Amino acid sequence: MLKNWMGAAATIVLLLAAKPVFAAGFSAADVPAYAGEHSGVYAHIEANSEAHLQALQRWVRQRSISAQNDGVAEMAAMLAGDLEALGFSEVAVVPSAGHPGVWGYYDAGAEKTLVVYMMYDVQPVNEADWQSPPFAAEVIEHKHGQVLMGRAATNQKGPQRAFLNALDSIRTVEGELPVNLMVLAEGEEELGSPNFPEIVANYADRLKTADGVIFPFNSQSPAGDVSMFLGVKGIVYFELEANGERSGGPKAAEIHGSYKAVADAPVWRLVQALASLTSPDGNTIAVPGYYDPIEEPTEEERWVFEGTVPGWTQREAAMQEGLAVDGWIDGMEGRESLERYVFGTTLNIDGIWGGYTGEGVKTILPHKAVAKVDSRLVPGQTPDHALSLIRSHLDVSGFEDVIVRELSGYPAAQTSIDAPLVQATIGVFRKRDITPDVTVRLAGSAPYYLFTDLGLPMVASGLGLGGGAHAPNEFMVIEPLPGSRVAGLVEVEKFYVDLLYALAAAEN
Amino acid sequence: MLKNWMGAAATIVLLLAAKPVFAAGFSAADVPAYAGEHSGVYAHIEANSEAHLQALQRWVRQRSISAQNDGVAEMAAMLAGDLEALGFSEVAVVPSAGHPGVWGYYDAGAEKTLVVYMMYDVQPVNEADWQSPPFAAEVIEHKHGQVLMGRAATNQKGPQRAFLNALDSIRTVEGELPVNLMVLAEGEEELGSPNFPEIVANYADRLKTADGVIFPFNSQSPAGDVSMFLGVKGIVYFELEANGERSGGPKAAEIHGSYKAVADAPVWRLVQALASLTSPDGNTIAVPGYYDPIEEPTEEERWVFEGTVPGWTQREAAMQEGLAVDGWIDGMEGRESLERYVFGTTLNIDGIWGGYTGEGVKTILPHKAVAKVDSRLVPGQTPDHALSLIRSHLDVSGFEDVIVRELSGYPAAQTSIDAPLVQATIGVFRKRDITPDVTVRLAGSAPYYLFTDLGLPMVASGLGLGGGAHAPNEFMVIEPLPGSRVAGLVEVEKFYVDLLYALAAAEN
Repeated sequence: MLKNWMGAAATIVLLLAAKPVFAAGFSAADVPAYAGEHSGVYAHIEANSEAHLQALQRWVRQRSISAQNDGVAEMAAMLAGDLEALGFSEVAVVPSAGHPGVWGYYDAGAEKTLVVYMMYDVQPVNEADWQSPPFAAEVIEHKHGQVLMGRAATNQKGPQRAFLNALDSIRTVEGELPVNLMVLAEGEEELGSPNFPEIVANYADRLKTADGVIFPFNSQSPAGDVSMFLGVKGIVYFELEANGERSGGPKAAEIHGSYKAVADAPVWRLVQALASLTSPDGNTIAVPGYYDPIEEPTEEERWVFEGTVPGWTQREAAMQEGLAVDGWIDGMEGRESLERYVFGTTLNIDGIWGGYTGEGVKTILPHKAVAKVDSRLVPGQTPDHALSLIRSHLDVSGFEDVIVRELSGYPAAQTSIDAPLVQATIGVFRKRDITPDVTVRLAGSAPYYLFTDLGLPMVASGLGLGGGAHAPNEFMVIEPLPGSRVAGLVEVEKFYVDLLYALAAAEN
Repeated sequence: MLKNWMGAAATIVLLLAAKPVFAAGFSAADVPAYAGEHSGVYAHIEANSEAHLQALQRWVRQRSISAQNDGVAEMAAMLAGDLEALGFSEVAVVPSAGHPGVWGYYDAGAEKTLVVYMMYDVQPVNEADWQSPPFAAEVIEHKHGQVLMGRAATNQKGPQRAFLNALDSIRTVEGELPVNLMVLAEGEEELGSPNFPEIVANYADRLKTADGVIFPFNSQSPAGDVSMFLGVKGIVYFELEANGERSGGPKAAEIHGSYKAVADAPVWRLVQALASLTSPDGNTIAVPGYYDPIEEPTEEERWVFEGTVPGWTQREAAMQEGLAVDGWIDGMEGRESLERYVFGTTLNIDGIWGGYTGEGVKTILPHKAVAKVDSRLVPGQTPDHALSLIRSHLDVSGFEDVIVRELSGYPAAQTSIDAPLVQATIGVFRKRDITPDVTVRLAGSAPYYLFTDLGLPMVASGLGLGGGAHAPNEFMVIEPLPGSRVAGLVEVEKFYVDLLYALAAAEN
């Protein structure tokens, strides 16, 4: 299957003697279904479904709220212990400036090596909001069938432990795994992964030798469909602050609003500085050179993009309804809006505050105002460069007094549709009569550059359905309703079995 | 003393054959001290100081928190009962859309009539923050001497009941008051006086026949100095709001920040609309015509202004230190900054908020953002006109989607230095060797237009020292420290005795 799209593209180029035209675009339906059958392993999974479910419950019951340092060390130890029990020859709890990582290496003596990215921390909970206690990990009846309810049921303990269950069955039945594994887990994903770069750097030389990275993920929609993305945008997230110390006006605290007659106002400075960053409609970034480093989409990206235009166009109205948005910017639709969504950088105000925000009338001149701003970065952009352009623009525009404070930043990440891991994943879905909707990239951000910058393709995917991440009543489907296309836990685990074998068999 | 400054000014004009120059400006020291002595009344006040103090305590002990409707009706009844006991021939509790007003008319058969504006409501309290309970009205030792501590001790029950005590002693000793009185009290001053215009309107025809309005006030500084102001600025206070319903973007709730690629952002619209209202430094209003209706200061105002330049210039550094402001706008000082402070309109952001305002990183596109904005109005400006200019400017600039929501608005108020009530007040201070610092107007706002628009001069002044209004440990000095220039309760009451007689004796 390797490079088949390149051949197609080259043919068209030859025929038209012009720049490539991708009339059809990539279609996952053209990827052959994975043909392997691993009946003995499947049977073991089925026979041990109760024990496998209990392994998920054991993980969910172990609290690991990173923001509150609640159970984090215990969960790191539990993960490390599980890897040892599964025959990983190297297992280490990896200290960092924050919560530790966990490293494990499983030597199968195989040709290929798969990195498994994991997160073992969870979001905080408000227990009163849950219909079943968040750390009870009960199996309850639900509109999607029998589900495991609990914090991290789907984000991310459920799919991750299902992946390990699959390993257990392969080893028990076949004696050995088809690929070597490197597990690298962090305990601060819900905090924005502040120390994961350091943890990755410790193992960079080992990781580079692998063939790809998987992040086990419940990717199915309630209808059973699957979306896959080949990339993510980067981000630079920063605060802009104006205060009396730097901008004039009150330095220590608010003063009476009548002093505006003679005193400078930091809030006005923040507003004016922000306004200088965009067009009046807020949709075009007015910082000189901001768009310049953006790389043109590659031929491959355009080809994959073309394949997604019809689906986007079809789903567009429903998406807007779900978001309670009457329409996109300037009435864009179809190809045009998808172009902006996939290939566009952004500048967004996440929050802004200063002064009196209560009911009614209070007349003060605030001493400080802050805005939280993020810019989604596409290939070619870097956080440092983007932020330096913003800083320079503010300086040149006379806003030297306005503080720019970076809170987070990392570049985009991209994986090729050609990568054996990607093709294997699609093939394993195709075996199940699922044709994943493969998109160039999420408009959202994740620090997958940590792996892709090491030259590794990365896939965050899997069978399975979950919901309620970062919310009450989080769940993962264990046993779907009759006739549903959603996979239950047994089928989720079989998917990961197939994926390991498919990757092992893939041409490089 | 009438029109004496006009004569001086005319002389200078004649000499220079040019526009008036006020080299010296008004000086309260040129106003003759009030010469009357009312020994019998003073003696009665001294002899009854304990009972008079108890009258203040009785008022403070009666809770009347308007925001919580706590004791309001009882306090209105107490005030009405006190007026009846003092011989007011008409007393009425006046219904309104909110808490009632109180009206009282005292017919002394006198030539002159004084309106007494009162507020009988108080600010809420947090009892735990008080060193003496806020409604115990205890007399305690304090750095300023013996003080009455309690909510409304100085804002405004203390000075108001002291004024009534003075009436009581005059009537007891002399048999009659030297002036007729109209008391008009409200129970919603701490709520922004929403229904006081309606209450004033009920009595407008009666009020118009009076000679002036006094608001009894503890005007002394801890050093014993007194400031008087002849006017107040008006205000228009409004919210600007951008939301998805009108500006595009999400209508119901925040959405994921990555959708900025295709979705409009209400926060940007608010920021851009606000930014269109001022120069980049936030100090010049960019709304066309905004400054046009402002009236040139009158000759009288300039003359009074001149008299205040030296004091302002002297106090300027200390004021800035108190406000924690390094300097005024563009380094203005002295006459220039005082001009802006007294004669300038403003546009001030009191508060702004939208989206995520907590710690760290959260990537959302908020569906709504709001700013609270106020403009201080000087003579010539009206709230309706100011707001219509802002609305028109937003519309012409393409911000029809941004909502302008008025919360409060009233015009400036001004009293002439010539008014017999003003001259009488200064003369009564001068009798006590106090030369009040008389300023053209406060830079702050109060709805005194309700009275001045009826043609009445208005004075908010009196002897006495208080502190802690709107805060814990509110107090009024009852017995000052030995050697202090601050007046105790007995001297405060004697001041009001003299003031009534001085007004009665003043030429019209």
